[in-house]
Amino acid sequence: MIRVLDENRSADFYRQAFGLETADRLDFETFTLVYLRNAESAFELELTINKGRTEPYALGDGYGHLAVSVDDLDAEHARISGLGYATGKIVEFERDGNLLARFFFVTDPDGYKIEVVQRHGRFE
Amino acid sequence: MIRVLDENRSADFYRQAFGLETADRLDFETFTLVYLRNAESAFELELTINKGRTEPYALGDGYGHLAVSVDDLDAEHARISGLGYATGKIVEFERDGNLLARFFFVTDPDGYKIEVVQRHGRFE
Repeated sequence: MIRVLDENRSADFYRQAFGLETADRLDFETFTLVYLRNAESAFELELTINKGRTEPYALGDGYGHLAVSVDDLDAEHARISGLGYATGKIVEFERDGNLLARFFFVTDPDGYKIEVVQRHGRFE
Repeated sequence: MIRVLDENRSADFYRQAFGLETADRLDFETFTLVYLRNAESAFELELTINKGRTEPYALGDGYGHLAVSVDDLDAEHARISGLGYATGKIVEFERDGNLLARFFFVTDPDGYKIEVVQRHGRFE
């Protein structure tokens, strides 16, 4: 679960970037819970929107990021960048001449980092 | 990915509480990456241990928690509490007389919250 300021802005981002659709939505007096899923995975992202909150959330230095894997990293990098979202460059993470991972980071509207990893090796 | 201070302490917690075993471990000069998995799920938790770090991480107020689902919430609550980990009480989350969820929270050694949810309804 992550706390976000603007439900629609975040729902747009997670749908456009990762195909996550709203599977459930529970609206309460002071907050709303939104559950995002896609067909690829049992993973679910829960968004909490606290009504009236305008101050950005403090993300701290403990939690790092969520990660998703994709079949075609270059295509996803171009597509997500083309949507206008803040992506870093593609990084190749090698050790002893072996490619361990290819990935990039994209930042969601509240500043949370998402790692997008090429399916390869241990990330199949 | 979450950053933790003590690899063994965290590995013990996630193994004992959730059956997550070390699937991979990459040791670098200044940090270690540990990947924890179990057979039930494709979910993977990545731990980063920054060598020499002793100051607790700031968890902020943006990231909320990870969540896992279990078949027998009462048994898991008793078992995890019995291991000496900090658990909250079991909460029943109802709306309009319908049980939406039964859950409790447990706190990991660095203070990260994990929600343990009874498999029921939308949490099957």
